[in-house]
Amino acid sequence: MTVINTNQDFQTSFIKVYQKRCEEKLRSLLPAKNSTKSQLAEALAYAVLSGGKRIRPLLCYATAEALSAPADHVDAVACAVELIHAYSLVHDDLPAMDNDDLRRGQPTCHKAYNEATAILAGDALQALAFEVIADDTLSPASHQQKLALILELAQACGVFGMVEGQCLDIAAEGQQLKLADLEHIHQLKTGALITSSVTLAAKACDYRDPHVIALLSRYATLLGLAFQVKDDILDVTTETDTLGKTQGADAALEKATYPALLGLEGAEQKLQALHQDIQHILQSLTTSLGSSASILGDLANYIIQRHY
Amino acid sequence: MTVINTNQDFQTSFIKVYQKRCEEKLRSLLPAKNSTKSQLAEALAYAVLSGGKRIRPLLCYATAEALSAPADHVDAVACAVELIHAYSLVHDDLPAMDNDDLRRGQPTCHKAYNEATAILAGDALQALAFEVIADDTLSPASHQQKLALILELAQACGVFGMVEGQCLDIAAEGQQLKLADLEHIHQLKTGALITSSVTLAAKACDYRDPHVIALLSRYATLLGLAFQVKDDILDVTTETDTLGKTQGADAALEKATYPALLGLEGAEQKLQALHQDIQHILQSLTTSLGSSASILGDLANYIIQRHY
Repeated sequence: MTVINTNQDFQTSFIKVYQKRCEEKLRSLLPAKNSTKSQLAEALAYAVLSGGKRIRPLLCYATAEALSAPADHVDAVACAVELIHAYSLVHDDLPAMDNDDLRRGQPTCHKAYNEATAILAGDALQALAFEVIADDTLSPASHQQKLALILELAQACGVFGMVEGQCLDIAAEGQQLKLADLEHIHQLKTGALITSSVTLAAKACDYRDPHVIALLSRYATLLGLAFQVKDDILDVTTETDTLGKTQGADAALEKATYPALLGLEGAEQKLQALHQDIQHILQSLTTSLGSSASILGDLANYIIQRHY
Repeated sequence: MTVINTNQDFQTSFIKVYQKRCEEKLRSLLPAKNSTKSQLAEALAYAVLSGGKRIRPLLCYATAEALSAPADHVDAVACAVELIHAYSLVHDDLPAMDNDDLRRGQPTCHKAYNEATAILAGDALQALAFEVIADDTLSPASHQQKLALILELAQACGVFGMVEGQCLDIAAEGQQLKLADLEHIHQLKTGALITSSVTLAAKACDYRDPHVIALLSRYATLLGLAFQVKDDILDVTTETDTLGKTQGADAALEKATYPALLGLEGAEQKLQALHQDIQHILQSLTTSLGSSASILGDLANYIIQRHY
């Protein structure tokens, strides 16, 4: 893997290189658009290949680079977490859930097709995520490693992870939440899969130092939270055209958000505090891993400073 | 495994023993009802433990018995296929899909809870199915075997399997189908998982004779089709109370069914023809496996002669 660790070329190199790599891998894994008699294969491609920042795959590749491991060790987990993320968005956007019409600047999957196709496309994407890891061709990991990856991914996206977070998020609409409750929801809804992007990548690289893995996990948990705080801020401050989804959607659903609980300034302060905590962890990671850890700092800066 | 192969005690022994065994395993695998802050864990238990004939797990256990392998070799796959089946029912019953209010004599999951919870419960059940196979504690299979099981299960329930079948089934509502199209839909919608119940069980028993596996696969494919023909007949001839789901639901949705295409008598003849084909295959299986294969014949009789 080419080491790219200067700030100035980060966005034009690492991000573009690995967004493109992930895009190509996903494209090769998805069924050809006309390969099903129904519209299902087309809906899958629509859900996965209509843009997206690929933050979870980028975290996988950045972890590989930080651990000085080849990128091909994490191709499978990078695609798998993105497929799980894509399925969760398709289901979250459904009328019975967040009822969103717009995603990444385009009609949501159930608007472009129909509700039944969107539910089924999400279901098929989840199955594909597990297929991708189980398939022998995509990853050099051992059988034992792959099983550990599947187990961790299933737990991260299951009843005590992402799905429970979404369930709590919907139940909380219109409720007055405390900050701790909001954080619990986010730690499950988005945090579990974001943290797993890093820990799965470390496992896929067969990296085993428990001290470093604990640091990586803490880094990802804080970054997941920072990602959500930033998302909430952008929902208030950014117009629909830039955001690619409907501005003010959270407020319309009476969702508890960081700006709603802390005020916009308070939410900004929270974000900066998380950024500082992340930087402290990165110092420890640099002590353990050397300069290769800087890629994780660059990625954190990118996520926290993004404008959409 | 105790060999139970006389017809008269089949229903009171094999079926009850293995329905109970599967029920207990599923109960131990599902999260405790109060283990999530949301209603999710409760909805999972509701979806999985509210009765059901457990035909797919019974096929797993019958395959193990036919291959003279211990039942514990197939516990994990038996639970996994039932969890996938349960998730598919929860999603199929949704208003955007078949819009059914009744399942196994009780309100469907989205009626008992709400649509969002039902979508998420289905999602969590799918993840749990893969977790169950990947988990090291439930099965003595090797890592390599488990990965092969996960790969086959993911493919059976994914975009070229069960989910595509459901998508075609919905798209076909109100359409005039040919018999071949109807059979294609059923082979995907229910057939893929029923066939996999047998082939996954053979894999989990580390059984490798390709001739016998081909016979088992053919047996299961024909049985899956017979199951569907019987289901269509029961939808016409059996009252809601006995059926546990709404009588005439297929006709109400203008679904193509065997009785609609062939007439009730034609559908009965089709069922008998399939039963004869199955019996021919069972003769070949008995030649290869000896008398232990008779359990598969007993199970076929049970499925084809059931009254609900």
